[in-house]
Amino acid sequence: MKQSELFLKTQKEFPKDEVAYNAKALTRGNFIYKLMAGVHAYLPLGFRVRTKVERIIREEMNALGSAEVLMPALHPKASWERTGRWEGLKKIMYRLKDEAGHEFGLGPTHEEIVAELARFEIFSYEDLPKSVYQIQTKFRNEPRAKSGLLRGREFSMKDLYSFHTDEDSLAEFYERAKEAYKKVFARMGLTAYVTEASGGDFSKQFSHEFMVETEAGEDEVMLCRACQFAQNREITAAKAGDKCPSCTKGKLESVTCVEVGNIFKLGTKFSSPVKLHYKDNKGEEHPVVMGSYGIGVDRLVGTIVEVSHDDKGIIWPESVAPFAVHLLALGAMTPDLKKTAEALYTTLEAKGIEVLYDDREGLSAGEKFNDADLIGIPLRVVVSGKTMEQGKFELKRRNEKEARMMTEKELVAYLAK
Amino acid sequence: MKQSELFLKTQKEFPKDEVAYNAKALTRGNFIYKLMAGVHAYLPLGFRVRTKVERIIREEMNALGSAEVLMPALHPKASWERTGRWEGLKKIMYRLKDEAGHEFGLGPTHEEIVAELARFEIFSYEDLPKSVYQIQTKFRNEPRAKSGLLRGREFSMKDLYSFHTDEDSLAEFYERAKEAYKKVFARMGLTAYVTEASGGDFSKQFSHEFMVETEAGEDEVMLCRACQFAQNREITAAKAGDKCPSCTKGKLESVTCVEVGNIFKLGTKFSSPVKLHYKDNKGEEHPVVMGSYGIGVDRLVGTIVEVSHDDKGIIWPESVAPFAVHLLALGAMTPDLKKTAEALYTTLEAKGIEVLYDDREGLSAGEKFNDADLIGIPLRVVVSGKTMEQGKFELKRRNEKEARMMTEKELVAYLAK
Repeated sequence: MKQSELFLKTQKEFPKDEVAYNAKALTRGNFIYKLMAGVHAYLPLGFRVRTKVERIIREEMNALGSAEVLMPALHPKASWERTGRWEGLKKIMYRLKDEAGHEFGLGPTHEEIVAELARFEIFSYEDLPKSVYQIQTKFRNEPRAKSGLLRGREFSMKDLYSFHTDEDSLAEFYERAKEAYKKVFARMGLTAYVTEASGGDFSKQFSHEFMVETEAGEDEVMLCRACQFAQNREITAAKAGDKCPSCTKGKLESVTCVEVGNIFKLGTKFSSPVKLHYKDNKGEEHPVVMGSYGIGVDRLVGTIVEVSHDDKGIIWPESVAPFAVHLLALGAMTPDLKKTAEALYTTLEAKGIEVLYDDREGLSAGEKFNDADLIGIPLRVVVSGKTMEQGKFELKRRNEKEARMMTEKELVAYLAK
Repeated sequence: MKQSELFLKTQKEFPKDEVAYNAKALTRGNFIYKLMAGVHAYLPLGFRVRTKVERIIREEMNALGSAEVLMPALHPKASWERTGRWEGLKKIMYRLKDEAGHEFGLGPTHEEIVAELARFEIFSYEDLPKSVYQIQTKFRNEPRAKSGLLRGREFSMKDLYSFHTDEDSLAEFYERAKEAYKKVFARMGLTAYVTEASGGDFSKQFSHEFMVETEAGEDEVMLCRACQFAQNREITAAKAGDKCPSCTKGKLESVTCVEVGNIFKLGTKFSSPVKLHYKDNKGEEHPVVMGSYGIGVDRLVGTIVEVSHDDKGIIWPESVAPFAVHLLALGAMTPDLKKTAEALYTTLEAKGIEVLYDDREGLSAGEKFNDADLIGIPLRVVVSGKTMEQGKFELKRRNEKEARMMTEKELVAYLAK
């Protein structure tokens, strides 16, 4: 795409009212617009990153054998009263009334709703196990919404729900989901520690949180770097320096991590209240055993920025970068320069390579370089009077210092790989 | 996908509490689940249709040169007060308060929000024209939500916003958007009449609605079939039988159409209140001229069902069908039958053909045929003891009566086309 045709006005300075680095960089780079605390719009660059994050999640959830659905955000009060969470979650669930006096909640999660609709899908043990997932907008009354995309009042989650005859079947799927989650995060360049945590409002059993180490995190985690055993501070009395209770070799460290995913064994907590039952092979009825598995989409975008940047700006991993290549035309936009840059742009686009072409007029080389570093596209290609004299282009990776000169043929071959 | 692994339990009868055909068929076919009036979940089959509808819209909006964004649903009261629509739309906008007493609205549309954020994107005439679009969930307090996907309280819209220096630039884009809209609807097998209508809460000028003729429609339109001139009854005194004011040859007919899209020339109604201004080449400031262009995503899914069905169920156009091929294994699931069906299933999937494989055990041929007709996938392939005796498969189009027999080689070649 041509940069001049996009909503893509970067700002000269980091915004002064933001604390979290992801909020600063994503705002300055024009990826997002803050409508109010915890409520953001995705601008074209940000939307492209988000779409790639979603695509990776979808691919791994589909590979788990789960099918995508989409549940609504507006929930009737009755659905939440059945499980007691209309009261239990009243602090975080936004509520509203229509003129007829009906009360609704804006869903912060979907255990109640998915259990309700699964009654029309699951009747017998032959219908199990099954799972469905959605990527959907959730709402949460969040007084401390000040960490950019890490903690929103309106945010997108991938939530998956699984249905089983018994705990063994759940445990088998739970382990497969854990592996799928590890793949999701690894594909985005993130190291996520599988951390034991409390079940919160969801389960009496321990749950597992996927924690990425970053200064912007809010949870304290006891981590053994030797064996990667990790426990949320809230469920352990262990201190930093203690021997690791898992491998008994390493020592525990106290780190702060942001939570990018969580998985819960729900048991029959949500199936029993709506009578989501199945018949076994003797015709006897039992409540369905459930699991729930979340990944924060916006939170992932924010976390990637937190862990992958330098003092000039963001460094996107290739897998989620808004574009693969940032093509800069530098110096006065002479007909020759335009022609050379446009020709390369067209060639690359025709090969299916995603190019952001900085065709803006009247900007200095320094301004264009600064924007490119801030935006953080993995590969930068420069066309200028100088490179044209040599009949070449300059290629530089965002995460390397050295640039190299290439002919068009070499460059196209390199990028097509 | 294997039918046994999906949430896909069809119902034996049409639901008795629904009036609109799309609500009846989509519920019975397990495409959607009604959580409450006007609020639906998309189940796996329905989600696949919706995704294809969205893809067609995206392709045509991208071809217009517009870039995708995503704006939030939760809006601060202040954004809507500036234009007077906090009061003006109070009947249809859901509102809520947080504990601190801040008031929010759930966006039924996004003119206010997009104008607000465009102030950070548009400064000079050189930044214009530009446009952005989103596919996003909207909310509307709708007392008469009883037409399935045609009229929701929570619904998905594609809304595009364009920004211009003057009315001429807007008019040029407006005509291009009209053509893009025609392409969107044509690709889904819909004939949409471009209908003159009032500007409503959006504009003092006439707007254009894209109307599809169906009994489930709620608007009365005066239509000339000779030249396709159409006017919403609300803005004309013309009666059925009058001479067409456009071609003067045809006669006007009164038809009911559901509205699947609308386009508005907004002028400066939404840019002025937020001071969305640009500087011309003399440095003088002017308010930006805007247009707004909507397409109802859920409504399109519902409309396609309304216009494309027979007494047995839905007939999906290929472009939005949940799967391209429905493969039915009929009769007792002998090892031979399973092997033959699975082999074909694997071959077709490997060729990138989307197949729903009815591998369910214990159902009669009649039950499987009825489900296939109800679900409405364009091509049906049957494997049974009979077809295996001939070493062939039976192929039938959903919209044709006659089936034909083909060898695997013939079938794969036919479907790969």
